Amino acid sequence: MASTPRWRTALTKALSLPDNKGQNVYQLATIDPNDSPRARTVVHRDIIQPSDCPHLPVIITTTDIRTPKVWQLLAYGRTEICWWMAGSQDQFRIYGPVRVIRSPNARAEIRAPHIPSLALDRFDEQGFDWEKKRLEVFDSMSAHMKASWCRPPPGSVMESYDDAKKWPQTVPKLGEAESDEDKRNQEQALRNFSLILIEAVEVDWLQLGVHPNQRTRFVREEEDWAEQIIVP
Amino acid sequence: MASTPRWRTALTKALSLPDNKGQNVYQLATIDPNDSPRARTVVHRDIIQPSDCPHLPVIITTTDIRTPKVWQLLAYGRTEICWWMAGSQDQFRIYGPVRVIRSPNARAEIRAPHIPSLALDRFDEQGFDWEKKRLEVFDSMSAHMKASWCRPPPGSVMESYDDAKKWPQTVPKLGEAESDEDKRNQEQALRNFSLILIEAVEVDWLQLGVHPNQRTRFVREEEDWAEQIIVP
Repeated sequence: MASTPRWRTALTKALSLPDNKGQNVYQLATIDPNDSPRARTVVHRDIIQPSDCPHLPVIITTTDIRTPKVWQLLAYGRTEICWWMAGSQDQFRIYGPVRVIRSPNARAEIRAPHIPSLALDRFDEQGFDWEKKRLEVFDSMSAHMKASWCRPPPGSVMESYDDAKKWPQTVPKLGEAESDEDKRNQEQALRNFSLILIEAVEVDWLQLGVHPNQRTRFVREEEDWAEQIIVP
Repeated sequence: MASTPRWRTALTKALSLPDNKGQNVYQLATIDPNDSPRARTVVHRDIIQPSDCPHLPVIITTTDIRTPKVWQLLAYGRTEICWWMAGSQDQFRIYGPVRVIRSPNARAEIRAPHIPSLALDRFDEQGFDWEKKRLEVFDSMSAHMKASWCRPPPGSVMESYDDAKKWPQTVPKLGEAESDEDKRNQEQALRNFSLILIEAVEVDWLQLGVHPNQRTRFVREEEDWAEQIIVP
């Protein structure tokens, strides 16, 4: 049976180091409508794999469905994340097909090219419940973070920084909204809150914390991971 | 006279905070030959501007001329860097035309599309000596870092991690190479060592360290910077 790729074990180990405490963000690369490369920081949420498929890890981050990065991601169907862990001086670049899991109630229509996939298709074959996962990730966030999905569309122009003081400051956990306002805010947050799934098919692991520096390229070929030592 | 844009002052201030000590890296976005977005971490080296042009900052980072990112950058002529400062929770995304300053002795031929530029053209008009700047930046680095430009081509396959032990470990400062080996290594390092210049024309500054969070978009229009408050 295919097993967990070595980079996945190394990533988990690096993340668990005290030196890397709080290093749970990475940069997500996209291409904008003017054919310009773009990157922004996003927060890591989870890594999961289909049942009995430890060799098919999928990275999960989150976004507001209304941000430009959603359309930029889906226009090309692939992305790379660059995860720099300053404590241990490890860099993991993870590249592969991308999918966005949005609310069944989201207004936006999303059309994306079909990109060959193994892990994401396997999840589908196994009938994985993405809406359940979406709600779980939403509920795991702080009340303050949950409220961030209730803002006006990210990137839209405001009169003053103070306008933000009128926005909802907290949104309760699922099942705990009591006032009409809390219920309305929770609905709005859930409508905008989306998962971004990145299926790892190439990983470039750079270790600047060891001397001489080490760098390893992992490429998934069918159901197996090939590994090459490369020049840093 | 045009003045220093506010984002530039904010960036310098953020960098000087004790909480942001060592936050001198950012991610550089490119597009690879398969139309896939890519990103990797690079080290910040300097910000400079043409004489009497405080409104035209150019960001400087460095690379080995033999890395794929050089060709990826030049194929599109524009890039975005994403500078996340974890201490103060500031993010600066800086977008604009890019240029690579290589050794006069580099073997590789570089052809890049002409991208309209203001700061880089101004430097040229003023007869700025880029080779002198390249040598200065090279010399400011540690002997160990200087030796990193003597490696085989970055990304090329190695037999074993131990192969790296045979590579030069240090390269002396300019004018201080005495042995033939040091001279040869210094020449090789200098042949590969290149500057990447990013002319800022759009900056997106996100402040997650203030509550409510603030976000500001700066766009250079001719010789002036326009500023908009936007939703984080």
